[in-house]
Amino acid sequence: MQFQVAQAIEVLAQTPAVIDALLRGKSAAWLNCRKTPESFSPLDVIGHLMHGELTDWIPRVRIILDHHDKKAFDPFDRFAFKDLIAGKPLEQLLDEFAELRRQSLQSLRDLSIGERQLELRGMHPELGPVTLGNLLATWVVHDLGHIAQVVKIMSSEYRDAVGPWRAYLSVLE
Amino acid sequence: MQFQVAQAIEVLAQTPAVIDALLRGKSAAWLNCRKTPESFSPLDVIGHLMHGELTDWIPRVRIILDHHDKKAFDPFDRFAFKDLIAGKPLEQLLDEFAELRRQSLQSLRDLSIGERQLELRGMHPELGPVTLGNLLATWVVHDLGHIAQVVKIMSSEYRDAVGPWRAYLSVLE
Repeated sequence: MQFQVAQAIEVLAQTPAVIDALLRGKSAAWLNCRKTPESFSPLDVIGHLMHGELTDWIPRVRIILDHHDKKAFDPFDRFAFKDLIAGKPLEQLLDEFAELRRQSLQSLRDLSIGERQLELRGMHPELGPVTLGNLLATWVVHDLGHIAQVVKIMSSEYRDAVGPWRAYLSVLE
Repeated sequence: MQFQVAQAIEVLAQTPAVIDALLRGKSAAWLNCRKTPESFSPLDVIGHLMHGELTDWIPRVRIILDHHDKKAFDPFDRFAFKDLIAGKPLEQLLDEFAELRRQSLQSLRDLSIGERQLELRGMHPELGPVTLGNLLATWVVHDLGHIAQVVKIMSSEYRDAVGPWRAYLSVLE
């Protein structure tokens, strides 16, 4: 499947509703579970996604459009989300993420990125040269990866409860 | 997290909305993508989940309640879903799955399964002895696993498009 901005937006636009369907109304036991004490809970994932909207995706798109590869992206802090979510109830976090994503996609549409611009170069501080198309595709896969992460975190809670079926359930691997 | 029927139902009840948010309104390119010619597309996953509602989960609950481990479950045919989805548009499949799941959960609630019944034994045709609690926990993890499967299938479409970021995106592994 060749990358197209419109098809990427289809997925990016859906993510808040997917996360909402997975988490709204769930018991605290589902919302706060985590595989290890240091790893993300489902609530942490929402915070991480919110942080990306604020500091990562559209800001990096603008760096590429404005500076091409002459200015490296700011490094992304994977744990800076903690202040964003502290003390907020789940419902508020879900609503805030949905609003941030709506704004990001409005910005993306306003930029009217054409096929030729997808080849524009940016500079990743660790990975080196990347393209605008790489960045937008990564945004999509990053979303999908964190949806997979939430369902894997939740699945792990029943690792023992499934008994012998564990042999069939690759999501528990 | 100890298995509780009410917490399991929280997840089971949400699955149609999660799948709906992931797929409704998407381009055919997203709905029909698959990693290999023989593997599931997102549409196939809906069919597989529908087939489970009809022949697997509640029917197996009833076999355990009625026959304990004296009657083995019928084997589950992982590819029998094809007739269920043939020729139907996505929107119809999403609606049918939601209705089947609603009926399944109504049946589950009507059975009022108590904590002691979770220990009741059943007989899996391949795995051998299992409990009713194992079966219900497996239903939850099976749902979550197929949500992860859908997002992985979709992610794979951008395996090349993400460029150097592939190194960071474990969902592509």
